[in-house]
Amino acid sequence: MEDCIFCKLANGIFETNVIYEDDTFTVILDVSPANPGHALILPKQHFANVFEIDDSTLAKAMVLAKKVASRMKDVLKCDGVNIVQNNGEAAGQTVMHYHLHVIPRYVNDGQKIGWKPGKESEEALKDMRAKLAFK
Amino acid sequence: MEDCIFCKLANGIFETNVIYEDDTFTVILDVSPANPGHALILPKQHFANVFEIDDSTLAKAMVLAKKVASRMKDVLKCDGVNIVQNNGEAAGQTVMHYHLHVIPRYVNDGQKIGWKPGKESEEALKDMRAKLAFK
Repeated sequence: MEDCIFCKLANGIFETNVIYEDDTFTVILDVSPANPGHALILPKQHFANVFEIDDSTLAKAMVLAKKVASRMKDVLKCDGVNIVQNNGEAAGQTVMHYHLHVIPRYVNDGQKIGWKPGKESEEALKDMRAKLAFK
Repeated sequence: MEDCIFCKLANGIFETNVIYEDDTFTVILDVSPANPGHALILPKQHFANVFEIDDSTLAKAMVLAKKVASRMKDVLKCDGVNIVQNNGEAAGQTVMHYHLHVIPRYVNDGQKIGWKPGKESEEALKDMRAKLAFK
């Protein structure tokens, strides 16, 4: 897409720090990382989010995330890894080109990637199950 | 695994609110949700994390996450969705059985699923690229 920054970074139109590339993806370093090494998996083709991306590319993105995470574990000796993918502004997505964050984590690194846990009643959970269940 | 709570939930040994099931996965509602409807994709087979799970199951998990997210969008009319997968205690993983969080999000829902952004120098990014790059 003409004015999409991630299209430009994924396709080499803008230069950046690429750590992996194949026919489908470019993996770059986030310039505002949660921790050094924080990487973004970008499909070269433009998809706004998980709802737009085709299943084959989506599946490959996740398998690539495992490779990136393994590389981080080997090279950075990190203690953990978060794999995060946000869809929609309400979910914290800032660039509307599908991307998968792979974030190296360390004990006491000062980051907290999580949420305030709610408490649902058994009845509310049963009602939700009835609504959401699918085959 | 004998004492793994997610093995028991995924394989029907403990009852819970299941919203989807196939030969490979069980999708259940989180009892402490970030927002109502927050779901967990659990492989029936035990894998501790992304490093242990085989590529085929991993790929299927992500494609299933898209289905779950689409179902949330249709039924709950949520504004966004986070897909999150934590590996290791340092990354906030509390149950050591691979699971993928699918979280419906709403504008101003009071949740903030993100991180404190760092700032890396061009030189630090280049050094990191040299370390992490792989083929």
